Amino acid sequence: MSEHRASRQPALTNPRSDRVRSVRALSQRSVRARTGLFLAEGPQAVREAVAHRPDQVRDVYVTAPAAERHTDIVATAVAARLHVHEASPEVFAAMAGTGTPQGVLAVCRPAALVLEDALAALPPDAVVCVLTQVRDPGNAGTVIRAADAAGADLVVVSDSSVDVYAPKVVRATAGSLFHLPLVVGVPVEQILAALGERGIRRLAADGSGRTLLPDADLRGAHAWVLGNEAWGLPEQTRAGCDDVVRVPIHGLAESLNLAMAATVCLYASAETRRRARR
Amino acid sequence: MSEHRASRQPALTNPRSDRVRSVRALSQRSVRARTGLFLAEGPQAVREAVAHRPDQVRDVYVTAPAAERHTDIVATAVAARLHVHEASPEVFAAMAGTGTPQGVLAVCRPAALVLEDALAALPPDAVVCVLTQVRDPGNAGTVIRAADAAGADLVVVSDSSVDVYAPKVVRATAGSLFHLPLVVGVPVEQILAALGERGIRRLAADGSGRTLLPDADLRGAHAWVLGNEAWGLPEQTRAGCDDVVRVPIHGLAESLNLAMAATVCLYASAETRRRARR
Repeated sequence: MSEHRASRQPALTNPRSDRVRSVRALSQRSVRARTGLFLAEGPQAVREAVAHRPDQVRDVYVTAPAAERHTDIVATAVAARLHVHEASPEVFAAMAGTGTPQGVLAVCRPAALVLEDALAALPPDAVVCVLTQVRDPGNAGTVIRAADAAGADLVVVSDSSVDVYAPKVVRATAGSLFHLPLVVGVPVEQILAALGERGIRRLAADGSGRTLLPDADLRGAHAWVLGNEAWGLPEQTRAGCDDVVRVPIHGLAESLNLAMAATVCLYASAETRRRARR
Repeated sequence: MSEHRASRQPALTNPRSDRVRSVRALSQRSVRARTGLFLAEGPQAVREAVAHRPDQVRDVYVTAPAAERHTDIVATAVAARLHVHEASPEVFAAMAGTGTPQGVLAVCRPAALVLEDALAALPPDAVVCVLTQVRDPGNAGTVIRAADAAGADLVVVSDSSVDVYAPKVVRATAGSLFHLPLVVGVPVEQILAALGERGIRRLAADGSGRTLLPDADLRGAHAWVLGNEAWGLPEQTRAGCDDVVRVPIHGLAESLNLAMAATVCLYASAETRRRARR
């Protein structure tokens, strides 16, 4: 099997090859855990991966039409000396986990950091986003995208949450998975303790909070702790935080969904910091 | 066919009856247009409908187990003198458009207002949410939920948008469809003109905007004009607005999705108004 760089010769044509099977298998969590690899699918995710984290990219697969359409992705990957493989449409369809493959995917290595190292690298006015017991892939990915857009410095995902390297999460991050430092797999108690030791204020975002978001103190380093989409944060987690903050509900809605609440909280932090930095 | 009020006798047992067929058919847009009816499915939507807009509810259908589980919904419906029909599980499954019917649904009448009347009823510091060319049902519903949570006074959906009475939109509003005045089916040019005549400032929310959200003037009556999830607002629509505002992107993310951007904008309006009203 030839590996080539941006050549237009279809190198991979056998949809039943071991390589194709092994790529396809990365949609399974057990295979990701065993191999230490995951899939980034679609032009948006792959573009961000090759541009921002080429060190995380092991292989790029592209169909001939997609290579024509996304010359920027191929050029960036080639410039980063990545392996770009051209795949026939049949091979690509057999590799892709999605129903509508868009002709570009990358096999990537996670770049998850050790919690202590990640915290040590934070600026003094850091904004951190902690996810615990978030189970829905779309929600987890959307919150990571919001954290990126709001300029958060770090995302920490507890061990009780969805696997952030699952294809649906990667897709929902819209490339933001490759923009932000990420820590995964740590128990939430340990995350809260480590934040406390560093003097990073822990703000639980929960509908039960007594502090309204506009009244919350968002100056200096702090972390938003976000819980499950349906049942929020357990009492024990809230008790381990420095404050419990709720987004005000002005109308008759019972609540905001997790991603919306996270976005509003993270943007409130961003705006406070923007003013302080002026 | 007997109609009864909160009786526990299973009255509807024939999944092939005309009534069952006519309820099921409401998942089709053409049938909704012809009959002037729509479906609210699941306990959350039906609870809000019977509590806040019993005038919109024509019939409530409930399975025996769901009636046991949601006694509050049945009690509220009965108190509002609504028709509550008990349906066998087979009948209910045949009626419900969702894959996982939760045993409660209501056949409702839209309460869409005439634009001029809705605008005339607004407070002097009104916040209005306008959706145009929004095509994804989940996005449309989530924005309506965000508008409700942020205390917006009116939602206006242009004729070029998804049908807000489609089951997926109703579900995504999480009951908020029954909380807010709603205008549908008006061309966006007409919406913008009517807002302008009333002195309601029109703020296009668009990534191309020159005004950053924190710098936008959100005092007094204004309307957020939100466009398509993929391509934003057309030039012509932006030109018809008083300002084009963008949510700042602090990190490397290309953008926020429509629902997140809408939530951040609507909450900025809510916070400005909260301070002004103090």
